Amino acid sequence: MTIGYVSIMLFRQLFDQESWTYTYLIVDTEIGSAILVDSVLEQVERDLKLLKELDLTLSYCLETHVHADHVTGAERLRTKTGCSAIVPAHAHVSCADRHIGDGEILTLGSVSIEAIATPGHTDSHMAYLVNGERLLTGDALFIRGCGRTDFQSGDPGTLYDSVTQRLFTLPDEIRVYPAHDYRGHTVSTIGEEKQWNPRFVGRDRADYIDFMNNLNLPDPKK
Amino acid sequence: MTIGYVSIMLFRQLFDQESWTYTYLIVDTEIGSAILVDSVLEQVERDLKLLKELDLTLSYCLETHVHADHVTGAERLRTKTGCSAIVPAHAHVSCADRHIGDGEILTLGSVSIEAIATPGHTDSHMAYLVNGERLLTGDALFIRGCGRTDFQSGDPGTLYDSVTQRLFTLPDEIRVYPAHDYRGHTVSTIGEEKQWNPRFVGRDRADYIDFMNNLNLPDPKK
Repeated sequence: MTIGYVSIMLFRQLFDQESWTYTYLIVDTEIGSAILVDSVLEQVERDLKLLKELDLTLSYCLETHVHADHVTGAERLRTKTGCSAIVPAHAHVSCADRHIGDGEILTLGSVSIEAIATPGHTDSHMAYLVNGERLLTGDALFIRGCGRTDFQSGDPGTLYDSVTQRLFTLPDEIRVYPAHDYRGHTVSTIGEEKQWNPRFVGRDRADYIDFMNNLNLPDPKK
Repeated sequence: MTIGYVSIMLFRQLFDQESWTYTYLIVDTEIGSAILVDSVLEQVERDLKLLKELDLTLSYCLETHVHADHVTGAERLRTKTGCSAIVPAHAHVSCADRHIGDGEILTLGSVSIEAIATPGHTDSHMAYLVNGERLLTGDALFIRGCGRTDFQSGDPGTLYDSVTQRLFTLPDEIRVYPAHDYRGHTVSTIGEEKQWNPRFVGRDRADYIDFMNNLNLPDPKK
Protein backbone atom coordinates (compact mmCIF):
# COMPACT_ATOMS: atom_id res chain seq x y z
CA MET A 1 0.00 0.00 0.00
CA THR A 2 1.29 3.42 -0.87
CA ILE A 3 0.51 5.93 1.85
CA GLY A 4 -0.24 9.39 0.50
CA TYR A 5 2.77 11.50 -0.38
CA VAL A 6 3.37 14.80 -2.03
CA SER A 7 6.08 15.32 -4.57
CA ILE A 8 6.70 18.27 -6.82
CA MET A 9 9.58 16.52 -8.54
CA LEU A 10 8.88 14.81 -11.83
CA PHE A 11 11.48 12.22 -12.74
CA ARG A 12 11.23 10.64 -16.16
CA GLN A 13 13.43 8.14 -17.97
CA LEU A 14 13.83 8.38 -21.75
CA PHE A 15 15.47 5.77 -23.98
CA ASP A 16 17.46 6.00 -27.19
CA GLN A 17 17.15 2.67 -28.95
CA GLU A 18 20.13 3.23 -31.27
CA SER A 19 22.73 3.81 -28.53
CA TRP A 20 20.83 2.07 -25.70
CA THR A 21 21.14 5.31 -23.73
CA TYR A 22 18.89 6.52 -20.93
CA THR A 23 18.35 10.25 -20.68
CA TYR A 24 16.77 11.57 -17.50
CA LEU A 25 14.33 14.45 -17.28
CA ILE A 26 14.21 15.93 -13.79
CA VAL A 27 11.69 18.66 -13.08
CA ASP A 28 10.58 20.91 -10.28
CA THR A 29 6.92 21.07 -11.31
CA GLU A 30 6.18 24.04 -9.06
CA ILE A 31 8.59 26.35 -10.84
CA GLY A 32 8.32 24.58 -14.20
CA SER A 33 12.07 24.17 -14.66
CA ALA A 34 13.88 21.11 -15.94
CA ILE A 35 17.26 19.40 -16.13
CA LEU A 36 18.18 16.84 -18.80
CA VAL A 37 20.93 14.42 -17.84
CA ASP A 38 22.91 12.68 -20.61
CA SER A 39 20.83 13.92 -23.51
CA VAL A 40 21.38 12.26 -26.89
CA LEU A 41 21.89 14.29 -30.06
CA GLU A 42 19.51 12.19 -32.15
CA GLN A 43 16.73 12.67 -29.58
CA VAL A 44 16.92 16.45 -29.20
CA GLU A 45 13.70 17.05 -31.17
CA ARG A 46 11.83 14.46 -29.10
CA ASP A 47 13.08 16.03 -25.89
CA LEU A 48 12.27 19.59 -27.00
CA LYS A 49 8.76 18.49 -27.92
CA LEU A 50 8.24 16.90 -24.51
CA LEU A 51 9.55 20.01 -22.73
CA LYS A 52 7.11 22.15 -24.74
CA GLU A 53 4.15 19.86 -24.07
CA LEU A 54 4.89 19.85 -20.35
CA ASP A 55 5.34 23.64 -20.46
CA LEU A 56 8.85 23.46 -19.01
CA THR A 57 11.90 25.68 -19.25
CA LEU A 58 15.12 23.75 -19.68
CA SER A 59 17.56 25.20 -17.17
CA TYR A 60 20.45 22.75 -17.37
CA CYS A 61 21.90 20.00 -19.49
CA LEU A 62 24.02 17.90 -17.20
CA GLU A 63 26.46 15.15 -18.22
CA THR A 64 27.74 12.23 -16.18
CA HIS A 65 30.72 12.15 -18.52
CA VAL A 66 31.89 13.38 -21.86
CA HIS A 67 32.22 11.08 -24.81
CA ALA A 68 31.64 11.93 -28.45
CA ASP A 69 28.02 10.76 -28.34
CA HIS A 70 27.06 12.68 -25.21
CA VAL A 71 27.92 16.35 -25.17
CA THR A 72 26.55 16.97 -28.64
CA GLY A 73 22.96 16.66 -27.42
CA ALA A 74 23.66 19.32 -24.82
CA GLU A 75 25.16 21.72 -27.36
CA ARG A 76 22.12 21.66 -29.60
CA LEU A 77 19.76 21.94 -26.63
CA ARG A 78 21.73 24.95 -25.41
CA THR A 79 21.47 26.62 -28.80
CA LYS A 80 17.74 25.94 -29.01
CA THR A 81 16.76 26.76 -25.41
CA GLY A 82 19.52 28.88 -23.87
CA CYS A 83 20.05 26.32 -21.11
CA SER A 84 23.41 26.00 -19.35
CA ALA A 85 25.59 23.01 -20.15
CA ILE A 86 27.22 21.49 -17.07
CA VAL A 87 29.96 18.87 -17.23
CA PRO A 88 32.16 17.19 -14.62
CA ALA A 89 35.19 19.06 -13.34
CA HIS A 90 38.28 18.35 -15.45
CA ALA A 91 36.22 17.00 -18.36
CA HIS A 92 38.04 17.51 -21.63
CA VAL A 93 35.59 19.87 -23.28
CA SER A 94 35.78 23.51 -24.20
CA CYS A 95 32.11 24.40 -24.64
CA ALA A 96 30.65 23.89 -21.15
CA ASP A 97 29.10 26.80 -19.25
CA ARG A 98 29.99 25.33 -15.92
CA HIS A 99 31.90 22.46 -14.33
CA ILE A 100 30.66 20.56 -11.30
CA GLY A 101 33.06 19.03 -8.79
CA ASP A 102 32.88 16.16 -6.33
CA GLY A 103 30.44 16.95 -3.52
CA GLU A 104 29.01 20.02 -5.25
CA ILE A 105 25.25 20.32 -5.23
CA LEU A 106 23.24 21.59 -8.16
CA THR A 107 19.83 22.88 -7.10
CA LEU A 108 16.75 23.66 -9.15
CA GLY A 109 13.90 24.77 -6.92
CA SER A 110 13.38 21.90 -4.52
CA VAL A 111 15.46 19.46 -6.57
CA SER A 112 18.92 18.79 -5.22
CA ILE A 113 21.56 16.95 -7.27
CA GLU A 114 24.81 15.98 -5.59
CA ALA A 115 27.85 15.15 -7.73
CA ILE A 116 29.83 12.07 -6.70
CA ALA A 117 33.22 11.68 -8.38
CA THR A 118 33.28 8.21 -9.93
CA PRO A 119 36.22 8.11 -12.37
CA GLY A 120 37.35 4.94 -14.10
CA HIS A 121 35.20 4.74 -17.23
CA THR A 122 36.63 8.18 -17.97
CA ASP A 123 38.93 10.18 -15.73
CA SER A 124 36.30 12.82 -14.94
CA HIS A 125 33.06 10.85 -14.57
CA MET A 126 30.42 11.93 -12.03
CA ALA A 127 27.41 10.07 -10.62
CA TYR A 128 24.52 12.23 -9.45
CA LEU A 129 22.37 11.63 -6.38
CA VAL A 130 18.94 13.19 -6.90
CA ASN A 131 17.15 14.28 -3.73
CA GLY A 132 19.07 11.66 -1.79
CA GLU A 133 17.04 8.82 -3.26
CA ARG A 134 17.80 8.24 -6.94
CA LEU A 135 21.36 7.71 -8.18
CA LEU A 136 22.23 8.41 -11.80
CA THR A 137 25.24 6.17 -12.26
CA GLY A 138 26.18 7.08 -15.83
CA ASP A 139 28.68 4.61 -17.25
CA ALA A 140 30.28 3.83 -13.88
CA LEU A 141 27.71 1.30 -12.69
CA PHE A 142 25.21 -0.51 -14.89
CA ILE A 143 22.45 -2.88 -13.80
CA ARG A 144 24.46 -6.09 -13.29
CA GLY A 145 27.37 -4.54 -15.16
CA CYS A 146 29.68 -1.54 -15.48
CA GLY A 147 31.15 0.71 -18.13
CA ARG A 148 34.20 -0.36 -20.09
CA THR A 149 37.60 0.94 -19.02
CA ASP A 150 39.73 0.20 -22.04
CA PHE A 151 39.62 3.37 -24.10
CA GLN A 152 39.94 7.14 -23.83
CA SER A 153 40.80 7.88 -20.20
CA GLY A 154 39.49 4.67 -18.63
CA ASP A 155 41.21 2.79 -15.82
CA PRO A 156 39.84 -0.39 -14.22
CA GLY A 157 41.42 0.01 -10.79
CA THR A 158 40.02 3.53 -10.55
CA LEU A 159 36.53 2.33 -11.52
CA TYR A 160 36.70 -0.46 -8.95
CA ASP A 161 37.49 2.08 -6.26
CA SER A 162 34.74 4.45 -7.43
CA VAL A 163 32.04 1.79 -7.41
CA THR A 164 33.04 -0.03 -4.25
CA GLN A 165 34.04 3.00 -2.17
CA ARG A 166 31.71 5.74 -3.43
CA LEU A 167 28.54 3.96 -4.66
CA PHE A 168 28.32 0.67 -2.75
CA THR A 169 28.73 2.60 0.50
CA LEU A 170 25.41 4.41 -0.12
CA PRO A 171 22.20 3.06 1.50
CA ASP A 172 20.90 -0.19 -0.04
CA GLU A 173 17.49 1.26 -0.87
CA ILE A 174 18.80 4.01 -3.16
CA ARG A 175 17.54 3.42 -6.69
CA VAL A 176 20.14 3.02 -9.43
CA TYR A 177 19.46 4.57 -12.85
CA PRO A 178 22.28 3.91 -15.35
CA ALA A 179 23.11 5.72 -18.60
CA HIS A 180 22.79 2.49 -20.59
CA ASP A 181 21.17 -0.89 -20.39
CA TYR A 182 21.43 -3.67 -22.93
CA ARG A 183 18.91 -6.15 -21.53
CA GLY A 184 15.82 -4.02 -20.97
CA HIS A 185 16.26 -3.28 -17.29
CA THR A 186 15.29 0.25 -16.31
CA VAL A 187 16.20 0.52 -12.63
CA SER A 188 17.91 -1.33 -9.80
CA THR A 189 19.03 -0.53 -6.26
CA ILE A 190 22.39 -0.25 -4.53
CA GLY A 191 21.46 -3.30 -2.44
CA GLU A 192 20.72 -5.36 -5.54
CA GLU A 193 23.96 -4.38 -7.27
CA LYS A 194 26.05 -5.09 -4.19
CA GLN A 195 24.51 -8.56 -4.05
CA TRP A 196 24.21 -9.47 -7.75
CA ASN A 197 26.48 -7.38 -9.98
CA PRO A 198 28.71 -10.05 -11.58
CA ARG A 199 31.49 -7.58 -12.31
CA PHE A 200 32.08 -6.91 -8.62
CA VAL A 201 30.69 -9.81 -6.59
CA GLY A 202 33.47 -12.18 -5.62
CA ARG A 203 36.22 -10.08 -7.24
CA ASP A 204 38.84 -8.13 -5.35
CA ARG A 205 40.55 -5.15 -6.96
CA ALA A 206 43.28 -7.20 -8.66
CA ASP A 207 40.78 -9.77 -10.02
CA TYR A 208 38.60 -6.98 -11.33
CA ILE A 209 41.49 -5.24 -13.10
CA ASP A 210 42.52 -8.50 -14.69
CA PHE A 211 38.94 -9.25 -15.76
CA MET A 212 38.36 -5.79 -17.25
CA ASN A 213 41.69 -5.85 -19.08
CA ASN A 214 40.71 -9.09 -20.80
CA LEU A 215 37.19 -8.29 -21.98
CA ASN A 216 38.42 -7.76 -25.58
CA LEU A 217 35.45 -5.56 -26.43
CA PRO A 218 34.93 -4.32 -29.98
CA ASP A 219 35.55 -0.63 -30.69
CA PRO A 220 32.53 1.57 -29.93
CA LYS A 221 30.46 2.74 -32.90
CA LYS A 222 30.83 6.41 -31.95
CA MET B 1 10.71 17.83 -2.17
CA THR B 2 9.47 14.31 -1.59
CA ILE B 3 7.83 13.98 1.78
CA GLY B 4 8.45 10.60 3.39
CA TYR B 5 6.19 7.78 2.27
CA VAL B 6 6.04 4.08 2.83
CA SER B 7 5.44 1.62 0.04
CA ILE B 8 5.73 -2.12 0.04
CA MET B 9 4.91 -2.31 -3.67
CA LEU B 10 7.78 -2.63 -6.08
CA PHE B 11 6.86 -1.60 -9.61
CA ARG B 12 9.42 -2.18 -12.33
CA GLN B 13 9.32 -1.65 -16.06
CA LEU B 14 11.23 -4.02 -18.36
CA PHE B 15 11.82 -3.51 -22.08
CA ASP B 16 12.15 -5.90 -24.99
CA GLN B 17 14.14 -4.14 -27.69
CA GLU B 18 13.10 -6.52 -30.49
CA SER B 19 9.33 -6.01 -30.13
CA TRP B 20 9.47 -2.64 -28.33
CA THR B 21 7.38 -4.21 -25.56
CA TYR B 22 7.21 -3.15 -21.94
CA THR B 23 6.68 -5.89 -19.40
CA TYR B 24 5.73 -4.85 -15.88
CA LEU B 25 6.87 -6.52 -12.69
CA ILE B 26 4.57 -5.73 -9.77
CA VAL B 27 5.52 -7.01 -6.34
CA ASP B 28 4.25 -7.01 -2.80
CA THR B 29 7.65 -6.95 -1.13
CA GLU B 30 6.26 -7.91 2.27
CA ILE B 31 4.96 -11.28 1.08
CA GLY B 32 7.57 -11.66 -1.68
CA SER B 33 5.02 -12.38 -4.42
CA ALA B 34 5.02 -11.01 -7.94
CA ILE B 35 2.88 -10.47 -11.01
CA LEU B 36 4.29 -10.10 -14.52
CA VAL B 37 2.11 -8.20 -16.97
CA ASP B 38 2.59 -8.76 -20.72
CA SER B 39 5.68 -10.92 -20.47
CA VAL B 40 7.63 -11.58 -23.67
CA LEU B 41 8.69 -15.10 -24.68
CA GLU B 42 12.22 -14.07 -25.62
CA GLN B 43 12.74 -12.44 -22.22
CA VAL B 44 11.57 -15.32 -20.01
CA GLU B 45 15.10 -16.21 -18.89
CA ARG B 46 15.86 -12.58 -18.01
CA ASP B 47 12.66 -12.32 -16.02
CA LEU B 48 13.18 -15.63 -14.21
CA LYS B 49 16.69 -14.50 -13.26
CA LEU B 50 15.39 -11.23 -11.86
CA LEU B 51 12.67 -13.01 -9.89
CA LYS B 52 15.29 -15.34 -8.41
CA GLU B 53 17.67 -12.51 -7.52
CA LEU B 54 14.89 -10.57 -5.82
CA ASP B 55 13.79 -13.77 -4.04
CA LEU B 56 10.26 -13.55 -5.40
CA THR B 57 7.57 -16.12 -6.11
CA LEU B 58 5.74 -15.48 -9.37
CA SER B 59 2.05 -15.77 -8.56
CA TYR B 60 0.45 -14.53 -11.77
CA CYS B 61 1.16 -13.80 -15.40
CA LEU B 62 -1.40 -11.28 -16.51
CA GLU B 63 -2.11 -10.17 -20.08
CA THR B 64 -3.69 -6.96 -21.28
CA HIS B 65 -4.60 -8.81 -24.45
CA VAL B 66 -3.77 -11.91 -26.39
CA HIS B 67 -1.79 -11.76 -29.59
CA ALA B 68 0.64 -14.33 -30.88
CA ASP B 69 3.63 -12.57 -29.31
CA HIS B 70 2.10 -12.18 -25.86
CA VAL B 71 0.67 -15.31 -24.30
CA THR B 72 3.66 -17.44 -25.16
CA GLY B 73 5.80 -15.75 -22.46
CA ALA B 74 3.14 -16.59 -19.89
CA GLU B 75 2.97 -20.25 -20.92
CA ARG B 76 6.67 -20.79 -20.44
CA LEU B 77 6.67 -18.89 -17.17
CA ARG B 78 3.78 -21.04 -15.95
CA THR B 79 5.66 -24.21 -16.82
CA LYS B 80 8.82 -22.99 -15.08
CA THR B 81 7.25 -21.44 -11.97
CA GLY B 82 3.74 -22.87 -11.57
CA CYS B 83 2.23 -19.39 -11.70
CA SER B 84 -1.35 -18.86 -12.85
CA ALA B 85 -1.94 -17.36 -16.29
CA ILE B 86 -4.72 -14.77 -16.33
CA VAL B 87 -6.18 -13.34 -19.53
CA PRO B 88 -9.08 -10.99 -20.25
CA ALA B 89 -12.59 -12.43 -20.28
CA HIS B 90 -13.59 -13.67 -23.73
CA ALA B 91 -9.96 -13.78 -24.94
CA HIS B 92 -9.54 -16.40 -27.63
CA VAL B 93 -7.14 -18.68 -25.82
CA SER B 94 -7.50 -22.16 -24.43
CA CYS B 95 -4.59 -22.35 -22.01
CA ALA B 96 -5.44 -19.71 -19.39
CA ASP B 97 -5.98 -20.63 -15.75
CA ARG B 98 -8.36 -17.79 -15.17
CA HIS B 99 -10.18 -15.02 -17.00
CA ILE B 100 -10.61 -11.54 -15.57
CA GLY B 101 -13.66 -9.42 -16.40
CA ASP B 102 -14.39 -5.71 -16.46
CA GLY B 103 -14.33 -4.27 -12.94
CA GLU B 104 -12.85 -7.39 -11.39
CA ILE B 105 -10.01 -6.82 -8.96
CA LEU B 106 -6.96 -9.06 -8.74
CA THR B 107 -5.24 -8.79 -5.38
CA LEU B 108 -1.79 -9.89 -4.30
CA GLY B 109 -1.14 -8.95 -0.69
CA SER B 110 -1.57 -5.20 -0.58
CA VAL B 111 -1.45 -4.81 -4.38
CA SER B 112 -4.80 -4.26 -6.04
CA ILE B 113 -5.22 -4.49 -9.82
CA GLU B 114 -8.54 -3.46 -11.32
CA ALA B 115 -9.44 -4.61 -14.84
CA ILE B 116 -10.94 -1.98 -17.13
CA ALA B 117 -12.46 -3.32 -20.34
CA THR B 118 -10.86 -1.40 -23.21
CA PRO B 119 -11.66 -3.30 -26.42
CA GLY B 120 -10.84 -1.95 -29.85
CA HIS B 121 -7.26 -3.08 -30.50
CA THR B 122 -8.65 -6.56 -29.86
CA ASP B 123 -12.20 -7.41 -28.82
CA SER B 124 -11.19 -8.55 -25.33
CA HIS B 125 -8.49 -6.06 -24.29
CA MET B 126 -8.18 -4.97 -20.64
CA ALA B 127 -6.31 -2.05 -19.08
CA TYR B 128 -5.21 -2.52 -15.46
CA LEU B 129 -5.26 0.12 -12.76
CA VAL B 130 -2.62 -0.70 -10.15
CA ASN B 131 -3.34 0.57 -6.63
CA GLY B 132 -5.46 3.35 -8.12
CA GLU B 133 -2.39 5.24 -9.35
CA ARG B 134 -0.67 3.49 -12.26
CA LEU B 135 -2.58 2.50 -15.37
CA LEU B 136 -1.23 -0.27 -17.59
CA THR B 137 -2.83 0.64 -20.91
CA GLY B 138 -1.60 -2.29 -23.02
CA ASP B 139 -2.19 -1.62 -26.72
CA ALA B 140 -5.26 0.55 -26.15
CA LEU B 141 -3.46 3.78 -25.34
CA PHE B 142 0.18 4.54 -26.12
CA ILE B 143 2.17 7.63 -25.18
CA ARG B 144 0.97 10.07 -27.85
CA GLY B 145 -0.48 7.18 -29.82
CA CYS B 146 -2.70 4.10 -29.69
CA GLY B 147 -2.74 0.50 -30.86
CA ARG B 148 -3.73 -0.37 -34.40
CA THR B 149 -7.27 -1.53 -35.08
CA ASP B 150 -6.97 -3.06 -38.52
CA PHE B 151 -6.33 -6.74 -37.89
CA GLN B 152 -7.54 -9.69 -35.82
CA SER B 153 -10.52 -8.43 -33.81
CA GLY B 154 -9.75 -4.71 -33.92
CA ASP B 155 -12.36 -1.99 -34.37
CA PRO B 156 -11.57 1.75 -34.38
CA GLY B 157 -14.95 3.00 -33.12
CA THR B 158 -14.73 0.59 -30.20
CA LEU B 159 -11.20 1.75 -29.35
CA TYR B 160 -12.27 5.39 -29.51
CA ASP B 161 -15.03 4.68 -27.01
CA SER B 162 -12.70 2.70 -24.73
CA VAL B 163 -10.06 5.41 -24.58
CA THR B 164 -12.33 8.44 -24.36
CA GLN B 165 -14.98 6.95 -22.06
CA ARG B 166 -13.00 4.52 -19.87
CA LEU B 167 -9.45 5.94 -19.71
CA PHE B 168 -9.71 9.70 -20.31
CA THR B 169 -12.38 9.86 -17.58
CA LEU B 170 -9.82 8.78 -14.96
CA PRO B 171 -8.01 11.43 -12.87
CA ASP B 172 -5.41 13.46 -14.78
CA GLU B 173 -2.56 12.55 -12.43
CA ILE B 174 -2.79 8.80 -13.01
CA ARG B 175 0.40 7.57 -14.64
CA VAL B 176 0.12 5.81 -17.99
CA TYR B 177 2.34 2.80 -18.70
CA PRO B 178 1.80 1.34 -22.18
CA ALA B 179 2.72 -2.09 -23.56
CA HIS B 180 4.82 -0.54 -26.30
CA ASP B 181 6.66 2.63 -27.10
CA TYR B 182 8.57 3.39 -30.28
CA ARG B 183 10.21 6.71 -29.34
CA GLY B 184 11.82 5.96 -26.00
CA HIS B 185 9.12 7.31 -23.71
CA THR B 186 8.55 5.23 -20.61
CA VAL B 187 5.59 6.88 -18.87
CA SER B 188 2.99 9.57 -19.30
CA THR B 189 -0.17 10.66 -17.47
CA ILE B 190 -3.87 10.69 -18.32
CA GLY B 191 -3.76 14.50 -18.26
CA GLU B 192 -0.89 14.58 -20.76
CA GLU B 193 -2.57 12.16 -23.13
CA LYS B 194 -5.89 14.01 -23.00
CA GLN B 195 -4.03 17.18 -23.94
CA TRP B 196 -1.42 15.93 -26.39
CA ASN B 197 -2.28 12.53 -27.87
CA PRO B 198 -2.48 13.31 -31.61
CA ARG B 199 -4.73 10.33 -32.32
CA PHE B 200 -7.52 11.72 -30.15
CA VAL B 201 -7.04 15.48 -29.76
CA GLY B 202 -9.29 17.35 -32.17
CA ARG B 203 -10.89 14.19 -33.59
CA ASP B 204 -14.46 13.12 -32.97
CA ARG B 205 -15.46 9.46 -33.27
CA ALA B 206 -16.13 9.60 -37.01
CA ASP B 207 -12.85 11.43 -37.73
CA TYR B 208 -10.95 8.91 -35.62
CA ILE B 209 -12.50 5.92 -37.41
CA ASP B 210 -11.67 7.45 -40.76
CA PHE B 211 -8.11 8.22 -39.67
CA MET B 212 -7.49 4.71 -38.27
CA ASN B 213 -8.96 3.03 -41.34
CA ASN B 214 -6.51 4.89 -43.56
CA LEU B 215 -3.23 4.32 -41.70
CA ASN B 216 -2.17 1.64 -44.21
CA LEU B 217 0.17 0.02 -41.71
CA PRO B 218 2.43 -2.85 -42.75
CA ASP B 219 1.59 -6.33 -41.48
CA PRO B 220 3.02 -7.04 -38.02
CA LYS B 221 6.14 -9.19 -37.85
CA LYS B 222 4.51 -11.69 -35.48
